[in-house]
Amino acid sequence: MNKLSIIKIGGKIINEDNLLDNFIQSFTKVDGAKILVHGGGRAASELSERLDIPVQMIDGRRITDKDTLDVAIMVYAGLINKNIVAKLQQHHCNALGLSGADANCILADKREIKDIDFGYVGDIKKINIMSLKSFLSLGLTPVISALTHNGNGQLLNTNADTIAATLASSLSKDYAVNLKYCFEYNGVLKDLNDPNSILKSVNKVEAEAYIENGIFADGMIPKVTNAFYALENGATQVTICGIDHVDKNMSGTNFIL
Amino acid sequence: MNKLSIIKIGGKIINEDNLLDNFIQSFTKVDGAKILVHGGGRAASELSERLDIPVQMIDGRRITDKDTLDVAIMVYAGLINKNIVAKLQQHHCNALGLSGADANCILADKREIKDIDFGYVGDIKKINIMSLKSFLSLGLTPVISALTHNGNGQLLNTNADTIAATLASSLSKDYAVNLKYCFEYNGVLKDLNDPNSILKSVNKVEAEAYIENGIFADGMIPKVTNAFYALENGATQVTICGIDHVDKNMSGTNFIL
Repeated sequence: MNKLSIIKIGGKIINEDNLLDNFIQSFTKVDGAKILVHGGGRAASELSERLDIPVQMIDGRRITDKDTLDVAIMVYAGLINKNIVAKLQQHHCNALGLSGADANCILADKREIKDIDFGYVGDIKKINIMSLKSFLSLGLTPVISALTHNGNGQLLNTNADTIAATLASSLSKDYAVNLKYCFEYNGVLKDLNDPNSILKSVNKVEAEAYIENGIFADGMIPKVTNAFYALENGATQVTICGIDHVDKNMSGTNFIL
Repeated sequence: MNKLSIIKIGGKIINEDNLLDNFIQSFTKVDGAKILVHGGGRAASELSERLDIPVQMIDGRRITDKDTLDVAIMVYAGLINKNIVAKLQQHHCNALGLSGADANCILADKREIKDIDFGYVGDIKKINIMSLKSFLSLGLTPVISALTHNGNGQLLNTNADTIAATLASSLSKDYAVNLKYCFEYNGVLKDLNDPNSILKSVNKVEAEAYIENGIFADGMIPKVTNAFYALENGATQVTICGIDHVDKNMSGTNFIL
């Protein structure tokens, strides 16, 4: 099977030009078929603030009302996505920016209201493997923003970590998928105050212990959950690594079942 | 040669939900390969105003500084493009939203500073015919926003009427291209106060006379210039027509050389 790298970048990298440029340089060196998935929550929050749209969070999760969705569409699919695509083109990587609505790539259901109404948030229903395979076979590099659609004309906000893991799982029937969550450290730190305390590998039992004793907290928890989801559903390799090393196979923290 | 319809819509249609919905319904009925090109200047001006970004005009022409470019990227490639794509998907038209940077579709040069510095405005250098043909052959409908790139990582603002005409000309080697500028009237009116005064056809000599005596004014003039450019450079048919009739061949004002 051909190799496919699915690489996800998040807020801090996107918001700082020099970090993004470093990442772009290392991303363009990744061999073979590749897909980039990006969020952009920080930039969206900044625009919301400028537009006097209140940022509503419950348990670290964003509530997406109509105005907040419009901001997400403008920032994720517009500003961030197109600037990344233009920068990749500069480095001769033939990038194609996509939301989940484009070529019907990612269908989702609006999340049901239980205790919390998350608003225009989508839970992924189906990845259109055929569309993505067609783009990859044309030599294109899909750059996917954290938006999906419901097939009835409604765009939905969807967590980028989850999109990356679901893509990894869905495409693992056709490719040997290497999923990388890429962030500002060179791997998961056992001690946040010690940059040399990078964990080489984490298995599921260890991860549960780390979550319990607080070593894995906040934004790391959904990454870890998604990492194991991807591994259990077909991904060949899942790592969390730094922005300068996405083209190197042995760096970062490796998840093992 | 296979038929290709290139249809351009502008500000007023995009900004009014019921007009856009009427257009979408008629657009989805257009047979064969098709490309949609859209602007969005009105919505961009509205967002600029909310963000206290001054709209700068010199001799009635918009200046695109860095902040204004960011707004254009957010509104054209984000909000407008993705909402149109989601609506087209709802009607089972497999739309793919693109800026000129995506798949390297439209390369442009930043306009040289002569008397006026227009800022981040691009003059089209090259249409990537191969990319667009690949998408069309996959059964996709490209939806192109009024943005190009310079190949060095810089996005540029480019007039949507010009993009449509240049696409029509470039793709005319491979398709019999039918270019339609679609707006809120059912054709070009000889008398703006009489909706029944639609011109059935306009040749170049007549057009020059209409411009001279003020019947063609303001936004109509670049449309007419672009219409004749496309006709003189390979387009099979160029019309200006209403939003409800893009799927009908005989409506609107037909341009003839």
